[in-house]
Amino acid sequence: MPGRGLFVAFEGGEGAGKSTQVHRLFDWLGLVEVPARVTHEPGGTPPGARIRALLLDPATAGLSPRAEALLYAADRAHHVDTVVRPALDAGEVVVTDRFVDSSLAYQGAGRALALEEVRRLSHWATGGLLPDLTVLLDLPPEAGLARARGRAAADRLESESLEFHERVRATFRALAAAEPARYLVLDAQRPSDDLADAVRERVAALLPGRVA
Amino acid sequence: MPGRGLFVAFEGGEGAGKSTQVHRLFDWLGLVEVPARVTHEPGGTPPGARIRALLLDPATAGLSPRAEALLYAADRAHHVDTVVRPALDAGEVVVTDRFVDSSLAYQGAGRALALEEVRRLSHWATGGLLPDLTVLLDLPPEAGLARARGRAAADRLESESLEFHERVRATFRALAAAEPARYLVLDAQRPSDDLADAVRERVAALLPGRVA
Repeated sequence: MPGRGLFVAFEGGEGAGKSTQVHRLFDWLGLVEVPARVTHEPGGTPPGARIRALLLDPATAGLSPRAEALLYAADRAHHVDTVVRPALDAGEVVVTDRFVDSSLAYQGAGRALALEEVRRLSHWATGGLLPDLTVLLDLPPEAGLARARGRAAADRLESESLEFHERVRATFRALAAAEPARYLVLDAQRPSDDLADAVRERVAALLPGRVA
Repeated sequence: MPGRGLFVAFEGGEGAGKSTQVHRLFDWLGLVEVPARVTHEPGGTPPGARIRALLLDPATAGLSPRAEALLYAADRAHHVDTVVRPALDAGEVVVTDRFVDSSLAYQGAGRALALEEVRRLSHWATGGLLPDLTVLLDLPPEAGLARARGRAAADRLESESLEFHERVRATFRALAAAEPARYLVLDAQRPSDDLADAVRERVAALLPGRVA
Protein backbone atom coordinates (compact mmCIF):
# COMPACT_ATOMS: atom_id res chain seq x y z
CA MET A 1 0.00 0.00 0.00
CA PRO A 2 1.88 3.10 -1.19
CA GLY A 3 1.53 6.65 0.08
CA ARG A 4 0.10 8.09 3.29
CA GLY A 5 -1.91 5.90 5.63
CA LEU A 6 -5.00 6.69 7.67
CA PHE A 7 -4.98 8.00 11.24
CA VAL A 8 -7.90 7.03 13.49
CA ALA A 9 -8.22 8.11 17.13
CA PHE A 10 -10.65 6.81 19.73
CA GLU A 11 -11.67 9.24 22.43
CA GLY A 12 -14.04 9.22 25.38
CA GLY A 13 -14.25 9.17 29.15
CA GLU A 14 -13.24 6.43 31.55
CA GLY A 15 -14.93 3.09 30.91
CA ALA A 16 -16.37 4.07 27.52
CA GLY A 17 -15.00 0.92 25.89
CA LYS A 18 -12.28 2.56 23.78
CA SER A 19 -9.80 -0.28 24.19
CA THR A 20 -12.36 -2.89 23.11
CA GLN A 21 -13.33 -0.95 20.00
CA VAL A 22 -9.72 -0.13 19.12
CA HIS A 23 -8.91 -3.84 19.08
CA ARG A 24 -12.08 -4.81 17.21
CA LEU A 25 -11.17 -2.33 14.47
CA PHE A 26 -7.60 -3.60 14.38
CA ASP A 27 -8.75 -7.24 14.11
CA TRP A 28 -11.07 -6.36 11.24
CA LEU A 29 -8.31 -4.47 9.40
CA GLY A 30 -6.22 -7.63 9.69
CA LEU A 31 -9.07 -9.73 8.23
CA VAL A 32 -9.41 -7.43 5.23
CA GLU A 33 -5.61 -7.34 4.89
CA VAL A 34 -5.06 -3.63 5.46
CA PRO A 35 -1.69 -3.01 7.21
CA ALA A 36 -2.49 -1.45 10.56
CA ARG A 37 -1.10 -0.84 14.00
CA VAL A 38 -2.64 -0.17 17.38
CA THR A 39 -1.16 2.34 19.79
CA HIS A 40 -2.18 4.53 22.71
CA GLU A 41 -1.52 7.67 24.71
CA PRO A 42 -0.13 8.28 27.17
CA GLY A 43 2.63 5.71 27.35
CA GLY A 44 2.70 4.32 23.81
CA THR A 45 6.54 4.39 23.66
CA PRO A 46 9.25 3.36 26.16
CA PRO A 47 10.01 6.92 27.34
CA GLY A 48 6.26 7.59 27.19
CA ALA A 49 5.61 4.71 29.57
CA ARG A 50 7.90 6.38 32.10
CA ILE A 51 6.13 9.71 31.59
CA ARG A 52 2.76 7.99 32.03
CA ALA A 53 3.90 6.35 35.27
CA LEU A 54 4.87 9.78 36.58
CA LEU A 55 1.55 11.33 35.51
CA LEU A 56 -0.68 8.65 37.02
CA ASP A 57 1.28 8.19 40.24
CA PRO A 58 -0.96 9.31 43.12
CA ALA A 59 2.22 10.62 44.80
CA THR A 60 2.48 13.37 42.15
CA ALA A 61 -1.07 14.64 42.68
CA GLY A 62 0.48 18.04 43.38
CA LEU A 63 1.96 18.33 39.87
CA SER A 64 1.40 21.88 38.63
CA PRO A 65 -1.21 22.10 35.84
CA ARG A 66 1.31 23.45 33.33
CA ALA A 67 3.80 20.70 34.20
CA GLU A 68 1.09 18.09 33.73
CA ALA A 69 0.08 19.49 30.33
CA LEU A 70 3.73 19.64 29.25
CA LEU A 71 4.32 16.01 30.26
CA TYR A 72 1.33 14.84 28.23
CA ALA A 73 2.64 16.92 25.32
CA ALA A 74 6.13 15.36 25.67
CA ASP A 75 4.62 11.88 25.58
CA ARG A 76 2.64 12.85 22.48
CA ALA A 77 5.58 14.44 20.68
CA HIS A 78 7.69 11.32 21.06
CA HIS A 79 4.75 9.08 20.13
CA VAL A 80 4.00 11.04 16.95
CA ASP A 81 7.65 11.29 15.88
CA THR A 82 8.65 7.69 16.52
CA VAL A 83 5.43 5.68 16.03
CA VAL A 84 2.54 7.49 14.35
CA ARG A 85 4.26 9.41 11.54
CA PRO A 86 6.58 6.59 10.46
CA ALA A 87 3.61 4.21 10.23
CA LEU A 88 1.50 6.74 8.31
CA ASP A 89 4.42 7.39 5.98
CA ALA A 90 4.58 3.64 5.37
CA GLY A 91 0.91 3.70 4.35
CA GLU A 92 -0.48 1.96 7.44
CA VAL A 93 -3.73 2.60 9.28
CA VAL A 94 -2.78 3.85 12.75
CA VAL A 95 -5.42 3.35 15.45
CA THR A 96 -4.74 5.18 18.69
CA ASP A 97 -6.48 4.90 22.04
CA ARG A 98 -6.59 8.64 22.98
CA PHE A 99 -4.91 11.62 21.27
CA VAL A 100 -5.10 15.44 21.38
CA ASP A 101 -8.78 15.61 22.36
CA SER A 102 -8.05 13.86 25.65
CA SER A 103 -5.62 16.64 26.57
CA LEU A 104 -8.15 19.28 25.61
CA ALA A 105 -10.88 17.56 27.60
CA TYR A 106 -8.91 16.62 30.71
CA GLN A 107 -6.37 19.42 31.08
CA GLY A 108 -8.07 22.22 29.19
CA ALA A 109 -11.64 21.88 30.31
CA GLY A 110 -11.14 19.93 33.50
CA ARG A 111 -8.24 21.77 35.09
CA ALA A 112 -6.75 25.21 35.49
CA LEU A 113 -5.65 25.86 31.89
CA ALA A 114 -7.38 27.53 28.96
CA LEU A 115 -8.44 25.14 26.19
CA GLU A 116 -6.69 27.34 23.62
CA GLU A 117 -3.35 27.13 25.44
CA VAL A 118 -3.52 23.34 25.63
CA ARG A 119 -4.46 23.22 21.95
CA ARG A 120 -1.44 25.35 20.98
CA LEU A 121 0.83 23.12 23.03
CA SER A 122 -0.51 19.93 21.43
CA HIS A 123 -0.27 21.49 17.99
CA TRP A 124 3.42 22.18 18.57
CA ALA A 125 4.01 18.72 20.04
CA THR A 126 2.46 16.94 17.04
CA GLY A 127 3.79 19.25 14.35
CA GLY A 128 0.12 19.90 13.48
CA LEU A 129 -0.87 16.25 12.92
CA LEU A 130 -4.60 15.58 13.40
CA PRO A 131 -6.55 12.32 13.01
CA ASP A 132 -8.36 11.72 9.73
CA LEU A 133 -11.18 10.33 11.88
CA THR A 134 -11.87 10.59 15.60
CA VAL A 135 -14.37 8.13 17.06
CA LEU A 136 -15.95 9.58 20.20
CA LEU A 137 -17.48 6.93 22.44
CA ASP A 138 -19.89 9.08 24.37
CA LEU A 139 -21.44 8.05 27.66
CA PRO A 140 -22.64 9.62 30.92
CA PRO A 141 -19.77 9.71 33.45
CA GLU A 142 -21.73 7.76 36.10
CA ALA A 143 -21.98 4.79 33.73
CA GLY A 144 -18.36 4.95 32.58
CA LEU A 145 -16.89 5.34 36.04
CA ALA A 146 -18.91 2.41 37.34
CA ARG A 147 -17.45 0.27 34.53
CA ALA A 148 -13.90 1.56 35.07
CA ARG A 149 -14.08 1.00 38.83
CA GLY A 150 -15.24 -2.55 38.37
CA ARG A 151 -12.03 -3.14 36.42
CA ALA A 152 -9.17 -1.70 38.45
CA ALA A 153 -8.19 0.51 41.33
CA ALA A 154 -9.10 4.17 40.84
CA ASP A 155 -6.13 6.11 39.53
CA ARG A 156 -5.76 9.88 39.75
CA LEU A 157 -8.17 10.72 36.94
CA GLU A 158 -10.81 8.33 38.13
CA SER A 159 -10.73 9.79 41.62
CA GLU A 160 -11.75 13.25 40.34
CA SER A 161 -15.28 14.51 41.05
CA LEU A 162 -18.28 13.62 38.93
CA GLU A 163 -18.57 17.29 38.00
CA PHE A 164 -15.04 17.13 36.56
CA HIS A 165 -16.01 14.17 34.38
CA GLU A 166 -19.16 15.99 33.25
CA ARG A 167 -16.96 18.84 32.03
CA VAL A 168 -14.69 16.36 30.27
CA ARG A 169 -17.66 14.82 28.47
CA ALA A 170 -19.03 18.22 27.47
CA THR A 171 -15.64 19.18 25.98
CA PHE A 172 -15.37 15.96 23.95
CA ARG A 173 -18.87 16.59 22.56
CA ALA A 174 -18.13 20.23 21.77
CA LEU A 175 -14.96 19.29 19.87
CA ALA A 176 -16.92 16.77 17.79
CA ALA A 177 -19.73 19.24 17.14
CA ALA A 178 -17.24 21.85 15.89
CA GLU A 179 -15.84 19.53 13.18
CA PRO A 180 -18.53 16.94 12.35
CA ALA A 181 -16.77 15.72 9.18
CA ARG A 182 -13.75 14.49 11.17
CA TYR A 183 -15.77 12.80 13.93
CA LEU A 184 -17.98 9.79 14.45
CA VAL A 185 -19.91 10.17 17.71
CA LEU A 186 -21.40 6.96 19.05
CA ASP A 187 -23.52 6.20 22.12
CA ALA A 188 -21.13 3.96 24.04
CA GLN A 189 -24.05 2.20 25.75
CA ARG A 190 -25.06 0.52 22.48
CA PRO A 191 -24.05 -3.15 22.09
CA SER A 192 -20.38 -3.66 21.29
CA ASP A 193 -21.20 -5.36 17.95
CA ASP A 194 -23.26 -2.39 16.79
CA LEU A 195 -20.46 0.01 17.69
CA ALA A 196 -17.87 -2.10 15.87
CA ASP A 197 -20.11 -2.21 12.75
CA ALA A 198 -20.55 1.58 12.77
CA VAL A 199 -16.78 2.12 13.09
CA ARG A 200 -15.98 -0.36 10.29
CA GLU A 201 -18.48 1.28 7.95
CA ARG A 202 -16.95 4.70 8.48
CA VAL A 203 -13.35 3.51 8.22
CA ALA A 204 -14.12 1.49 5.07
CA ALA A 205 -15.45 4.66 3.46
CA LEU A 206 -12.09 6.31 4.18
CA LEU A 207 -10.20 3.45 2.47
CA PRO A 208 -11.74 3.51 -1.03
CA GLY A 209 -10.51 0.66 -3.20
CA ARG A 210 -8.63 -0.95 -0.28
CA VAL A 211 -11.50 -2.75 1.46
CA ALA A 212 -13.85 -5.16 -0.38
CA MET B 1 11.80 41.13 54.50
CA PRO B 2 8.44 42.06 52.95
CA GLY B 3 7.44 41.97 49.28
CA ARG B 4 8.95 40.26 46.26
CA GLY B 5 12.39 38.67 46.49
CA LEU B 6 15.22 38.55 44.01
CA PHE B 7 15.70 35.86 41.37
CA VAL B 8 19.29 35.05 40.33
CA ALA B 9 20.18 32.39 37.75
CA PHE B 10 23.62 30.94 37.00
CA GLU B 11 24.19 29.75 33.45
CA GLY B 12 27.08 28.35 31.46
CA GLY B 13 28.43 25.23 29.83
CA GLU B 14 29.61 22.01 31.43
CA GLY B 15 32.33 22.46 34.04
CA ALA B 16 32.02 26.27 34.19
CA GLY B 17 31.82 26.20 37.98
CA LYS B 18 28.16 27.16 38.35
CA SER B 19 27.52 24.92 41.34
CA THR B 20 30.52 26.35 43.25
CA GLN B 21 29.48 29.95 42.64
CA VAL B 22 25.82 29.24 43.43
CA HIS B 23 26.85 27.93 46.85
CA ARG B 24 29.33 30.73 47.48
CA LEU B 25 26.60 33.28 46.84
CA PHE B 26 24.20 31.38 49.06
CA ASP B 27 26.73 31.20 51.90
CA TRP B 28 27.37 34.93 51.66
CA LEU B 29 23.64 35.71 51.70
CA GLY B 30 23.44 33.68 54.91
CA LEU B 31 26.31 35.69 56.42
CA VAL B 32 24.60 39.00 55.65
CA GLU B 33 21.30 37.54 56.90
CA VAL B 34 19.31 37.77 53.69
CA PRO B 35 16.77 34.90 53.46
CA ALA B 36 17.75 32.84 50.46
CA ARG B 37 17.38 29.43 48.88
CA VAL B 38 19.41 27.44 46.39
CA THR B 39 17.77 25.37 43.70
CA HIS B 40 18.53 23.92 40.27
CA GLU B 41 17.16 22.72 36.95
CA PRO B 42 16.50 20.16 35.80
CA GLY B 43 15.42 18.07 38.76
CA GLY B 44 14.91 20.68 41.48
CA THR B 45 11.65 19.07 42.67
CA PRO B 46 10.64 15.43 43.32
CA PRO B 47 8.73 15.00 40.02
CA GLY B 48 11.50 17.03 38.36
CA ALA B 49 14.11 14.56 39.58
CA ARG B 50 12.22 11.79 37.80
CA ILE B 51 12.01 13.90 34.63
CA ARG B 52 15.73 14.63 34.86
CA ALA B 53 16.56 10.92 35.22
CA LEU B 54 14.57 10.25 32.06
CA LEU B 55 16.29 13.09 30.17
CA LEU B 56 19.83 12.14 31.11
CA ASP B 57 19.43 8.37 30.72
CA PRO B 58 21.67 7.26 27.83
CA ALA B 59 18.93 4.72 27.01
CA THR B 60 16.65 7.57 25.90
CA ALA B 61 19.18 9.09 23.49
CA GLY B 62 16.52 8.65 20.78
CA LEU B 63 14.09 11.03 22.50
CA SER B 64 12.52 13.27 19.84
CA PRO B 65 13.73 16.91 20.03
CA ARG B 66 10.23 18.22 20.74
CA ALA B 67 9.70 15.62 23.47
CA GLU B 68 13.00 16.59 25.05
CA ALA B 69 12.15 20.31 25.00
CA LEU B 70 8.71 19.58 26.47
CA LEU B 71 10.20 17.51 29.30
CA TYR B 72 12.60 20.30 30.25
CA ALA B 73 9.64 22.71 30.12
CA ALA B 74 7.58 20.41 32.37
CA ASP B 75 10.41 20.27 34.90
CA ARG B 76 10.64 24.08 34.78
CA ALA B 77 6.90 24.66 35.12
CA HIS B 78 6.70 22.54 38.26
CA HIS B 79 9.88 24.12 39.65
CA VAL B 80 8.62 27.67 39.11
CA ASP B 81 5.14 26.95 40.47
CA THR B 82 6.15 25.03 43.56
CA VAL B 83 9.61 26.40 44.50
CA VAL B 84 10.64 29.63 42.79
CA ARG B 85 7.47 31.72 42.87
CA PRO B 86 6.49 30.83 46.44
CA ALA B 87 9.99 31.77 47.65
CA LEU B 88 9.99 35.03 45.68
CA ASP B 89 6.53 35.82 47.03
CA ALA B 90 7.93 35.30 50.53
CA GLY B 91 10.64 37.87 49.76
CA GLU B 92 13.56 35.45 49.50
CA VAL B 93 16.55 35.54 47.18
CA VAL B 94 16.25 32.48 44.92
CA VAL B 95 19.53 31.29 43.39
CA THR B 96 19.11 28.69 40.65
CA ASP B 97 21.73 26.57 38.90
CA ARG B 98 20.38 26.80 35.30
CA PHE B 99 17.10 28.25 34.03
CA VAL B 100 15.53 29.24 30.68
CA ASP B 101 18.83 30.14 28.97
CA SER B 102 20.05 26.56 29.28
CA SER B 103 17.04 25.38 27.29
CA LEU B 104 17.62 28.04 24.67
CA ALA B 105 21.30 27.18 24.42
CA TYR B 106 21.06 23.38 24.51
CA GLN B 107 17.79 22.62 22.75
CA GLY B 108 17.31 25.72 20.65
CA ALA B 109 20.78 26.32 19.35
CA GLY B 110 22.26 22.88 19.77
CA ARG B 111 19.51 20.69 18.45
CA ALA B 112 16.82 20.54 15.82
CA LEU B 113 14.48 23.26 17.16
CA ALA B 114 14.23 26.98 16.45
CA LEU B 115 15.33 29.20 19.33
CA GLU B 116 12.09 31.16 19.10
CA GLU B 117 9.96 28.01 19.54
CA VAL B 118 11.91 26.96 22.62
CA ARG B 119 11.59 30.49 24.01
CA ARG B 120 7.81 30.47 23.55
CA LEU B 121 7.60 27.09 25.27
CA SER B 122 9.68 28.25 28.25
CA HIS B 123 7.69 31.46 28.46
CA TRP B 124 4.50 29.45 28.76
CA ALA B 125 6.05 27.03 31.26
CA THR B 126 7.22 29.84 33.58
CA GLY B 127 4.22 32.09 33.18
CA GLY B 128 6.70 34.68 31.87
CA LEU B 129 9.01 34.68 34.91
CA LEU B 130 12.59 35.82 34.13
CA PRO B 131 15.58 36.21 36.46
CA ASP B 132 16.35 39.66 37.81
CA LEU B 133 19.98 38.77 37.21
CA THR B 134 21.63 36.01 35.18
CA VAL B 135 25.28 35.29 35.87
CA LEU B 136 26.89 33.73 32.80
CA LEU B 137 30.08 31.83 33.62
CA ASP B 138 31.69 31.87 30.22
CA LEU B 139 34.45 29.47 29.22
CA PRO B 140 35.76 27.71 26.10
CA PRO B 141 34.12 24.27 25.81
CA GLU B 142 37.44 22.42 25.73
CA ALA B 143 38.29 23.77 29.19
CA GLY B 144 34.86 23.11 30.66
CA LEU B 145 34.52 19.60 29.30
CA ALA B 146 37.95 18.66 30.60
CA ARG B 147 36.87 19.81 34.07
CA ALA B 148 33.50 18.03 33.86
CA ARG B 149 35.07 14.79 32.67
CA GLY B 150 37.56 14.83 35.47
CA ARG B 151 34.59 14.81 37.83
CA ALA B 152 32.17 12.14 36.64
CA ALA B 153 31.18 9.80 33.83
CA ALA B 154 30.14 11.60 30.66
CA ASP B 155 26.35 11.84 30.50
CA ARG B 156 24.36 12.46 27.34
CA LEU B 157 25.11 16.17 27.08
CA GLU B 158 28.79 15.75 27.75
CA SER B 159 29.10 13.16 25.02
CA GLU B 160 27.96 15.64 22.33
CA SER B 161 30.52 16.99 19.87
CA LEU B 162 32.78 19.94 20.59
CA GLU B 163 31.04 21.83 17.78
CA PHE B 164 27.74 21.38 19.64
CA HIS B 165 29.25 22.91 22.79
CA GLU B 166 30.66 25.79 20.74
CA ARG B 167 27.13 26.56 19.52
CA VAL B 168 25.85 26.34 23.10
CA ARG B 169 28.47 28.85 24.26
CA ALA B 170 27.72 31.22 21.38
CA THR B 171 24.01 31.16 22.26
CA PHE B 172 24.64 31.93 25.94
CA ARG B 173 26.83 34.88 24.93
CA ALA B 174 24.29 36.16 22.40
CA LEU B 175 21.50 36.05 25.00
CA ALA B 176 23.64 38.07 27.42
CA ALA B 177 24.63 40.57 24.74
CA ALA B 178 20.98 41.15 23.83
CA GLU B 179 20.02 42.22 27.39
CA PRO B 180 23.18 43.48 29.12
CA ALA B 181 21.29 45.05 32.04
CA ARG B 182 19.98 41.65 33.16
CA TYR B 183 23.31 39.82 32.81
CA LEU B 184 26.68 39.58 34.46
CA VAL B 185 29.12 37.82 32.13
CA LEU B 186 32.27 36.51 33.84
CA ASP B 187 35.32 34.70 32.51
CA ALA B 188 34.96 31.37 34.33
CA GLN B 189 38.74 30.80 34.18
CA ARG B 190 39.32 33.62 36.69
CA PRO B 191 40.05 32.52 40.27
CA SER B 192 36.98 31.38 42.19
CA ASP B 193 37.42 34.15 44.81
CA ASP B 194 37.42 36.87 42.13
CA LEU B 195 34.26 35.44 40.59
CA ALA B 196 32.51 35.24 43.96
CA ASP B 197 33.45 38.88 44.69
CA ALA B 198 32.08 40.05 41.34
CA VAL B 199 28.80 38.20 41.90
CA ARG B 200 28.40 39.58 45.46
CA GLU B 201 28.99 43.12 44.30
CA ARG B 202 26.31 42.86 41.63
CA VAL B 203 23.79 41.11 43.89
CA ALA B 204 24.39 43.62 46.69
CA ALA B 205 23.54 46.40 44.26
CA LEU B 206 20.20 44.68 43.62
CA LEU B 207 19.40 44.52 47.34
CA PRO B 208 19.55 48.21 48.31
CA GLY B 209 19.17 48.75 52.03
CA ARG B 210 19.25 44.99 52.72
CA VAL B 211 23.01 44.40 52.64
CA ALA B 212 25.47 46.37 54.73
